[in-house]
Amino acid sequence: MEEQEGTLPQKADFSSWYNDILWRAEIMDVRYPVKGLYVWFPFGFGIRKRVYGILRELLDRDHEETLFPLLIPEPEFMKEAEHIKGFENEVYWVTHGGTTPLDVKLALRPTSETAIYPMYALWVRSHADLPIKVYQIVNTFRYETKHTRPLIRLREITSFKEAHTVHATWDEAESQVEDAIARYQEFYDRLNIPVLISKRPDWDKFPGADYTIAVDTIMPDGRTLQIGTVHHLGDHFSKTFSIQYEDTKGEQQYCHQTCYGISERSIAALISMHGDDLGLMLPPEVAPVQIVIVPVIMKKREEEVMQAATQLEAELQNAGYRVKIDTRDLRPGAKYYYWEMRGVPLRLEIGPRDLDNSVVMSVLRTGGKEPLPRADIISEVNRKMKEYTNVLLEHAQAHIQNHLFMVHEESELSNTVSKGVAAVHWCGNRECADRIEEISDASILGTEVRTDLIDQKRGNCIICGKPDGIVTLVGRSY
Amino acid sequence: MEEQEGTLPQKADFSSWYNDILWRAEIMDVRYPVKGLYVWFPFGFGIRKRVYGILRELLDRDHEETLFPLLIPEPEFMKEAEHIKGFENEVYWVTHGGTTPLDVKLALRPTSETAIYPMYALWVRSHADLPIKVYQIVNTFRYETKHTRPLIRLREITSFKEAHTVHATWDEAESQVEDAIARYQEFYDRLNIPVLISKRPDWDKFPGADYTIAVDTIMPDGRTLQIGTVHHLGDHFSKTFSIQYEDTKGEQQYCHQTCYGISERSIAALISMHGDDLGLMLPPEVAPVQIVIVPVIMKKREEEVMQAATQLEAELQNAGYRVKIDTRDLRPGAKYYYWEMRGVPLRLEIGPRDLDNSVVMSVLRTGGKEPLPRADIISEVNRKMKEYTNVLLEHAQAHIQNHLFMVHEESELSNTVSKGVAAVHWCGNRECADRIEEISDASILGTEVRTDLIDQKRGNCIICGKPDGIVTLVGRSY
Repeated sequence: MEEQEGTLPQKADFSSWYNDILWRAEIMDVRYPVKGLYVWFPFGFGIRKRVYGILRELLDRDHEETLFPLLIPEPEFMKEAEHIKGFENEVYWVTHGGTTPLDVKLALRPTSETAIYPMYALWVRSHADLPIKVYQIVNTFRYETKHTRPLIRLREITSFKEAHTVHATWDEAESQVEDAIARYQEFYDRLNIPVLISKRPDWDKFPGADYTIAVDTIMPDGRTLQIGTVHHLGDHFSKTFSIQYEDTKGEQQYCHQTCYGISERSIAALISMHGDDLGLMLPPEVAPVQIVIVPVIMKKREEEVMQAATQLEAELQNAGYRVKIDTRDLRPGAKYYYWEMRGVPLRLEIGPRDLDNSVVMSVLRTGGKEPLPRADIISEVNRKMKEYTNVLLEHAQAHIQNHLFMVHEESELSNTVSKGVAAVHWCGNRECADRIEEISDASILGTEVRTDLIDQKRGNCIICGKPDGIVTLVGRSY
Repeated sequence: MEEQEGTLPQKADFSSWYNDILWRAEIMDVRYPVKGLYVWFPFGFGIRKRVYGILRELLDRDHEETLFPLLIPEPEFMKEAEHIKGFENEVYWVTHGGTTPLDVKLALRPTSETAIYPMYALWVRSHADLPIKVYQIVNTFRYETKHTRPLIRLREITSFKEAHTVHATWDEAESQVEDAIARYQEFYDRLNIPVLISKRPDWDKFPGADYTIAVDTIMPDGRTLQIGTVHHLGDHFSKTFSIQYEDTKGEQQYCHQTCYGISERSIAALISMHGDDLGLMLPPEVAPVQIVIVPVIMKKREEEVMQAATQLEAELQNAGYRVKIDTRDLRPGAKYYYWEMRGVPLRLEIGPRDLDNSVVMSVLRTGGKEPLPRADIISEVNRKMKEYTNVLLEHAQAHIQNHLFMVHEESELSNTVSKGVAAVHWCGNRECADRIEEISDASILGTEVRTDLIDQKRGNCIICGKPDGIVTLVGRSY
């Protein structure tokens, strides 16, 4: 919608690259006149729609989608002490309707526990009502005083998928936590985003949770981005909100709960993991345009070429692909630039010479030009798409491998976390943890790390040297 | 999720019926602890998802979906004087972040003109950028002081579809208005909801519009429900927000705009138009469950019947139907009651005798029991679904016909609008309009009525008797 001037900064200069690609690829408009609030361009929204479509598909297997109010009355919000402490400084308050002061202040949900759980207290009566597995995709709000950043640190999180489950026992809730982790792993597999899954340290768990399992990825600059969390809430909230069921013996029992969420940070990760100096590289499943056809028009055979392009488009659409023919009056180079920026996986060029040779010229967004026999075009395109996806995945896996370091010496810590994530051994003692964070100027991300990339499961604590320390991730986070 | 006690009030007692069916059919939970805010039950959300799926499908033909922020800074909100006047008493204001007072108060959008149009001023540069046709589906807020009612009069409208278009000329905007009306007509056709489309009187148009076309339907109690509006905004907002384009001669011109919206009132209309004393009757396209199979279990041949039911389910699912087998340990009558309440179009019963006769017993939600030959089950079910949809449509059309009355005498007005909508002839004079509203204790809905149900297009004004008055709808509205 705007003339594009200049060029995209190199990805090595990640912060500039990220800010720039958001408008060049028409993902977010950052010019909305309130700090921390952004506008989805239609193209960006097309990516969002497909990413959240995958999330819905995965959850709809055994969850139900629903919708709870945005506004939470102050008394409900204030019920759970630990939870409030976690949020009180960053809650937006609605205090007036028109010019009338409200009797009861209303919080804009920073997350929906205190909106949903009073209703769960009404919904749950007996063990036969359990489990409940519900999710919603909603806007949530945080009054961020830190530096805001589109898709990453927002005042309006436009696309928070939050699930809230209720179970009879602590063990059942724990097995739901495992189930949620597997679902999130599957989600990020579909986006070709490798993740590090670990248990957050106790002092960094969700306010009101028994424990928190986090899904992080490593951004191009080596900093980590939390792109999913799963919380075991125990009976903490059920005691506060009186969520009880009658068991088979007729006795009242408190429920056990979990909640887990993913926000549009998933899209920040998608953009950052796969893009390059030319722009986005979208996995085919979430690309608004999967294939662009560029007709190579010579004066003589224009009609013939356009007919061939239209025929090709129809065949590819019939095969289920999202295809665009670019017939704009622009130089081919300008068209290539335009679609490369928007991460279209495959470009097909078709001109008089291709017609004569019964081929279509293919160019993958990851590189490589190859003529495809026109007669087998669908199977050939399928093959190229697989090739493309494999390259995306290999790049992403290499990126994680190259930014995860086993560190045994205190003196190496600070330097390492400036490049990526350090895996250290830690005795579990809080004082050693504080020391790790202090000398690294980074945070302990978690323990019980689920990855094949780290061999030495046990070792001497990097601080006190006590043996049998556990693997612990340390990194600088967004 | 709750034991259901008592029975649904008769639909003739519409207000009680409506309140009751919302929880009996698990559409909305009204027990959320803030007036005018409600919770979507998963079943209700399943209807919402499909209704809005149709809306998306219709708009995606040539609109782009997007997402703008909820929070509007006070200076932007206050820019357009007429618009403010229309909303100032019902806007919620966010005044605090944490305990800190905000420098700039933030409005919760009651509708998004003032959030979107400052961005349009940045997006539009030249005639080549036009038209813009964008929509979003969002939550909007009104501080309602009147009696609130789920899906109808809300403080949080959870599901507002609003489209905002920008054009070069007034005429192009007018033709977009016509296009939007046609799209809305198509939407309500898909839901089998007959509508009355008319031009709202000048004093009742959208604040800031040149004119407003409204889509109303008639509820079971004869009151009208506005379920869609289309506004020609002229260059009113483009002048306020400086939305200009350079024309082909290089001159700056103000744009012309339209906006049009549909809310969850569409679902209130869906429920109310098609339900009966037993519960919902959902059009198949939006029914979360389209077919319920009830196995008639006798002790002897239980396994055989269950196998047949499962096989039937698989065949129907393959044909694209949303099917449930009800294997709960309940009396058949309780199952029938349960699914009738939830508006499932078709019930199939299968028992030992049906197996022997190679039939499946079908019962439509609209009535009528018929054995279907098992061998042709898909084509038979297709036929029954068409039969069902036709009955829904006939009922709905009859309802509108029976609640729309041509009235020529002042003395009949008040009595008529207590039963439905009165069509009168009106000279166009404001004083006569005021008199119509006064003696009828109702509102002028609109003129330029698009319907085949009214023959006499012109007549003497019902008040002053002046000839050549135009057809005007008068009714009591929700």
